[in-house]
Amino acid sequence: MKNVLIFGAGRSSIFLLTYLAENALKYSWRVKVADTQESDLVRSLGLAFALLDVHDEFARDAEVKDADLVISLLPARFHKYVAQSCVKFSKNLLTASYETAELKAFEAEVNEKGLFFLNECGLDPGLDHMSAMKIINQLKNDGCVMECFESFTGGLVAPESDDNPWNYKFSWNPRNVVLAGQGGPARFIQNGKIKYIPYNRLFRRTEMIDLEKFGMFEGYANRDSLYYLQKYNLQGIPTIYRGTLRRPGFSKAWNVFVQLGATDDSYYLENVENMTYREFINSFLPYHPTDSVELKLFHYLNIPQDSEIVYKLKWMGIFDKTPIGLKKATPAQVLEHILKQKWQLQADDKDMIVMWHKFVYRKESDGELFRKTSSLVVTGENADKTAMAKTVGLPLAVAAKLVLTGQLNLKGMYIPTIPEIYDPILAELEDFEITFQEAESLETELVYY
Amino acid sequence: MKNVLIFGAGRSSIFLLTYLAENALKYSWRVKVADTQESDLVRSLGLAFALLDVHDEFARDAEVKDADLVISLLPARFHKYVAQSCVKFSKNLLTASYETAELKAFEAEVNEKGLFFLNECGLDPGLDHMSAMKIINQLKNDGCVMECFESFTGGLVAPESDDNPWNYKFSWNPRNVVLAGQGGPARFIQNGKIKYIPYNRLFRRTEMIDLEKFGMFEGYANRDSLYYLQKYNLQGIPTIYRGTLRRPGFSKAWNVFVQLGATDDSYYLENVENMTYREFINSFLPYHPTDSVELKLFHYLNIPQDSEIVYKLKWMGIFDKTPIGLKKATPAQVLEHILKQKWQLQADDKDMIVMWHKFVYRKESDGELFRKTSSLVVTGENADKTAMAKTVGLPLAVAAKLVLTGQLNLKGMYIPTIPEIYDPILAELEDFEITFQEAESLETELVYY
Repeated sequence: MKNVLIFGAGRSSIFLLTYLAENALKYSWRVKVADTQESDLVRSLGLAFALLDVHDEFARDAEVKDADLVISLLPARFHKYVAQSCVKFSKNLLTASYETAELKAFEAEVNEKGLFFLNECGLDPGLDHMSAMKIINQLKNDGCVMECFESFTGGLVAPESDDNPWNYKFSWNPRNVVLAGQGGPARFIQNGKIKYIPYNRLFRRTEMIDLEKFGMFEGYANRDSLYYLQKYNLQGIPTIYRGTLRRPGFSKAWNVFVQLGATDDSYYLENVENMTYREFINSFLPYHPTDSVELKLFHYLNIPQDSEIVYKLKWMGIFDKTPIGLKKATPAQVLEHILKQKWQLQADDKDMIVMWHKFVYRKESDGELFRKTSSLVVTGENADKTAMAKTVGLPLAVAAKLVLTGQLNLKGMYIPTIPEIYDPILAELEDFEITFQEAESLETELVYY
Repeated sequence: MKNVLIFGAGRSSIFLLTYLAENALKYSWRVKVADTQESDLVRSLGLAFALLDVHDEFARDAEVKDADLVISLLPARFHKYVAQSCVKFSKNLLTASYETAELKAFEAEVNEKGLFFLNECGLDPGLDHMSAMKIINQLKNDGCVMECFESFTGGLVAPESDDNPWNYKFSWNPRNVVLAGQGGPARFIQNGKIKYIPYNRLFRRTEMIDLEKFGMFEGYANRDSLYYLQKYNLQGIPTIYRGTLRRPGFSKAWNVFVQLGATDDSYYLENVENMTYREFINSFLPYHPTDSVELKLFHYLNIPQDSEIVYKLKWMGIFDKTPIGLKKATPAQVLEHILKQKWQLQADDKDMIVMWHKFVYRKESDGELFRKTSSLVVTGENADKTAMAKTVGLPLAVAAKLVLTGQLNLKGMYIPTIPEIYDPILAELEDFEITFQEAESLETELVYY
């Protein structure tokens, strides 16, 4: 009997918990969830449950002590507490979150005690690493010279549920969507030149991507692509670019909020308690005794009256005289509050995950350019069984199985960039229709941003 | 014999030290400067000198112990060390810097020991408080109802030394000029509405100000005007706005650096050691194999080829293939480095300080609107005897005299917003041709931003 302990059973846990529950009998697992409240999901799956706050060291230790494997689905800032207990009792740990400096700090102890900590084993980060490294390692084994690597991921709404002018709904943490792109410039390399894009230009430097049967998308640069040079062992590659996918036109309209200052999370608005949506927007616009908020905004940001942006903003309700209804809030919190009411997945809505990699390479050092693409599209079932929860949860679930059954026997701190980890996970994910489509062709021209 | 101790004898100390030296005999003062290096100025004035680092508590205490009054001209972040020693040995302290939370933390001890700490007693903050409060208090005493207060200050170059297309040269810390406007949105109130301007729009929301014989200026919003509601006892005033003055066209061109991300001080550039000015600018622009950096920039930021911005940027040399010559630098540090070579005051250059307040009020609650303006223009003598050094140093110098001669006998922590402080300082400053010009007229219309 092996004990699996999962911290956090929020929205993205459904596929992970279901997988573990369904395989529990076969592999003799005892699955227990620890969280601040018991969910219907945990009850319906008949899983053991421990009511606890992860800050409570005593309660946390008591649960970790009895576990054979720990998985943390908590928000990233809480992983360090889980990691502390895991190190204390020599337990292996899996997460779908970035291997931050905070987690890296445990590496010496993890090595010393011969533990296995696997981070970044979800969708993005996670499946992006696995699917990209599989191809990069193949190409390198074939002696190819890498010229370009681009990678885009988007959590979107499926076409059949796409009924708003932004072509977008929330399938993950709305707060992260509002704050996306903040905290340092986006960095990437284009033809050997390092490029920096500050936040205030990020949503105007998009590029179009045609995914054939799935249609057109636009991508904007995602954080620090330079970080992946080392992670993917691509030092010296002339072009590396990671981006986030949206439907065309999204970014230009989103940029309105950025330019206004409505995504700022660094200060509290005055008197938000008595403000309407319209007054919120007006607080970022010049005063005028008679001009409308609409016209002031369109003029301020140079938006033509017939622009699609106008329609998107009106649909969002930002000009409505609806009271905000929050007591204290930053601009970003007010914006999130407004967006949540409009971009919420309805019970029957399906979300859609799109991931797309492009590799450009030469088969010999002076040979012709080839292009390989690898793409993944996963559609959700409904607002509970989202493609997001599936693609975040199942890689973790399979990793857990591999560890528990002894098929994965590594010691140390890892992210899934090595074949021992990604090969069996990608293989099993195909059973769940998480399948990458690859294509290869001659590259006729490199596109410049 | 009274001992006066001055921490820091940098560029802005010349008028302060000269005033103290010239009055030393008359009032029996012994003036001593403490700094990390002795300057020609200190030597030529024949002042006592103590070589010390303000971090060295022992050395600092030894000097403060013997002083009757301490003045800190150090960069603001060092005042807390000086304040510590002053509190320890019950000494009065004067600075020209903002009364930050760090300094406010000493208030209880200052009160308990019956000390006098006076901050914000320079130009801006300093003369702005004094000259504005003098009029605000007059108007209130006359029973007027305040409708609007606007206040602008600029450290500029005098027309006779103005020989560049930006109409600007550095007369104070270049780093502060590069970072101006960062760290939270500008906030002000216009006709009862609180308005927020994020950094990325700050330099596009300027207003024109006509100072008649001194010509046209433009002003952009300066930090948090709401803070002054309480400081100036103006709670409930419909409009309050504080701004920074530049010559027309400056802000639109400066905005290019803001939009590029070249004023960002939050990260280090890669490989700056091997970069030219041109490559620095290019790192913020899209890649293209043949298009020029110039054209890419003008197109990226939508700058017409015949715009004055083009001429300003070319004059600045940002497109030159000059090596930067720094080993490690943030974008803001590189930009500062480039600007310093172009905007430096030459030995014979004269700088110019401009301060302008506007008050709108009714003489009775339903009466007509009146406007009072108060303006100050001070021109420097040369690159050493700047108007900046004069207007920062002399208010402090006069305050020091008032304290040392017992004419100012307050206990507690103050900024110069009360008549006991500003009346004698403003009166004596007139002897140095620091004189505010006031004018009053009917207000025909309020201008909206």
